[in-house]
Amino acid sequence: MRYCRIAEGFGLIDDDVIRLLDRSPLEGGRPDGLVVPLAAAKLLPPVIPPVFYAVGLNYRSHVEHALARGYPAATSPERPEVGYRANNALTGHLSPIVRPAGVHGRFEAEPEVVAVIGRTIRNASRGEAQASVFGWTIGNDVSAREWQNSDRTFWRSKNSDTFKPMGPWIETDVDPLAQTTTCRVDGEVRAEFATGAMIFDPFDFIVETTKYITMHPGDVLWMGADATVQLEPGNVVDIEISGIGVLSNPVQEES
Amino acid sequence: MRYCRIAEGFGLIDDDVIRLLDRSPLEGGRPDGLVVPLAAAKLLPPVIPPVFYAVGLNYRSHVEHALARGYPAATSPERPEVGYRANNALTGHLSPIVRPAGVHGRFEAEPEVVAVIGRTIRNASRGEAQASVFGWTIGNDVSAREWQNSDRTFWRSKNSDTFKPMGPWIETDVDPLAQTTTCRVDGEVRAEFATGAMIFDPFDFIVETTKYITMHPGDVLWMGADATVQLEPGNVVDIEISGIGVLSNPVQEES
Repeated sequence: MRYCRIAEGFGLIDDDVIRLLDRSPLEGGRPDGLVVPLAAAKLLPPVIPPVFYAVGLNYRSHVEHALARGYPAATSPERPEVGYRANNALTGHLSPIVRPAGVHGRFEAEPEVVAVIGRTIRNASRGEAQASVFGWTIGNDVSAREWQNSDRTFWRSKNSDTFKPMGPWIETDVDPLAQTTTCRVDGEVRAEFATGAMIFDPFDFIVETTKYITMHPGDVLWMGADATVQLEPGNVVDIEISGIGVLSNPVQEES
Repeated sequence: MRYCRIAEGFGLIDDDVIRLLDRSPLEGGRPDGLVVPLAAAKLLPPVIPPVFYAVGLNYRSHVEHALARGYPAATSPERPEVGYRANNALTGHLSPIVRPAGVHGRFEAEPEVVAVIGRTIRNASRGEAQASVFGWTIGNDVSAREWQNSDRTFWRSKNSDTFKPMGPWIETDVDPLAQTTTCRVDGEVRAEFATGAMIFDPFDFIVETTKYITMHPGDVLWMGADATVQLEPGNVVDIEISGIGVLSNPVQEES
């Protein structure tokens, strides 16, 4: 099943139409009879999370790449330790990524698979962690590297408005660890990697995180990227994860 | 005006009663006629923020204290750069702070004043920043220092369940920069400081943050602490900010 969100509410995608739901699919929403053509709909981030979890370095070659770029903190993680992003930065499929006026140099996409939590969980076993995931979507962890290096936190380097495209929808019937992630800029493949080649997988993170933290329905867990791709204003960046879909966003300069 | 939140919804505190509102005070909620005795009410965190902003080092003596403790990153900030906490950790007035089984050594309260944003703002002037704050509450940025030192992020050191008491209510008619913050453990004063002796004040943070980030109604901005206070299971920790109130929480060991 594919669930999306539009201005009118949550929806179930059925071929070329969206069947609107009476409430969130995370609360058991059912079609209420209203139908909207998919092609005419503006897709919003499929969920606004209570907590927006994000994994940093989680693919071996990303760690090596970061070390080679001179980030001394970029050692391979020994444990699944999660970080955070902020909801203000979320934007939907086809909405612009706006590069702030003060950003120069490396301004990069990070293509990520995203777990959407469907249950309230604490002290989850691996089986409970697997059962707790409602579905999967795609995230682009857009990053302004000069700010990432100069600032004490990731506040503007990773959380400026529009820096977190997420979508286009939540796919419930896919094994994310058996997929391929492809990142294209203006139609040209710039990166391709095995989505599942993670150091720690989503269930490792959920097991470890819930030793201390209750996760809730709607929480999202962005799983990190195995590649970064430079973006320039005027580009269109597509992230495809097989079995889920394509998240596409134009890049604009701040006006 | 003092606004709170209880299981039944948002409320306006009027002497010893809570007048329930028809919706959030941030959405212009009005009393709906229902009244609950304040003494009988379990106060919840007065708001669940879309984004939970938190300032790190923001008082000179906290910076000096952290440097003396051997945190090399604890240099005085040159710019107002905000960080984040997570909603799972929020808990209300009189609810327990639970020290996880694995926590030893320094387990500390950080008494903080909290700005509650009332408007959607971007590129705020200082005057707009001042006008954007709906009111003020109290936060306790409970921190497990061994984890803060050992981990890559603040995920469990500052965001374990119950580590972020907030309340007891939102006070709209107070100048937070003219107040005194007092932290008591079992009734004994352990720290007292001028709430307004900040390196950067809340409006500095809102002006700087909104250059890149849209802040929304209900967002909270925790302003940092000028002192840390050791907590042990069995303690009751009170944080009083004059003109706002007292946030009180018992400390328990994880069972």
